[in-house]
Amino acid sequence: MLKVVAKACVKVGETEKFKKLSSELIRESLKEEANISYNLYEDISNKQILTFIEEWKDKEGLTKHMKSPHFVRIMSELAKIQEKDMDINVYTNCF
Amino acid sequence: MLKVVAKACVKVGETEKFKKLSSELIRESLKEEANISYNLYEDISNKQILTFIEEWKDKEGLTKHMKSPHFVRIMSELAKIQEKDMDINVYTNCF
Repeated sequence: MLKVVAKACVKVGETEKFKKLSSELIRESLKEEANISYNLYEDISNKQILTFIEEWKDKEGLTKHMKSPHFVRIMSELAKIQEKDMDINVYTNCF
Repeated sequence: MLKVVAKACVKVGETEKFKKLSSELIRESLKEEANISYNLYEDISNKQILTFIEEWKDKEGLTKHMKSPHFVRIMSELAKIQEKDMDINVYTNCF
């Protein structure tokens, strides 16, 4: 199992648009065979920080996801309303 | 439900010690009434990045956790073997 944390700093005034696009990305990603979970989270002290936390069965499934039409299209839309590139980490559990 | 992502950059040669201390923190934290989940994750591209991902029932429970003896003691030990302060975000889910 792989866990992905993808943290975005969203431009002021664009968080609702970011959430709308994200809900579409989540809906499509949850349909993917290798997906376990996929959701968007808001930092309780800074509403401009919106972070995807996802779980995938394996690297192959995650790679396939990152080449999927919905991922490529929506991520390029999200990038336009971010202050900087997402801070992305792909993790495996230690215990 | 609150989700905590606490990302550490661990000094070279100290990851095993960090994991050992973390396993004790995880064991104690899982016993706390308000805890839902608590684990440590390793970045698959950079073994020096070790991140706690936790779930808590509510803010009150998380606050109590951060004042608990095991948290205070172990976090101060972990701080000694980190390159810099942990990057900590406390999240609530958007959907």
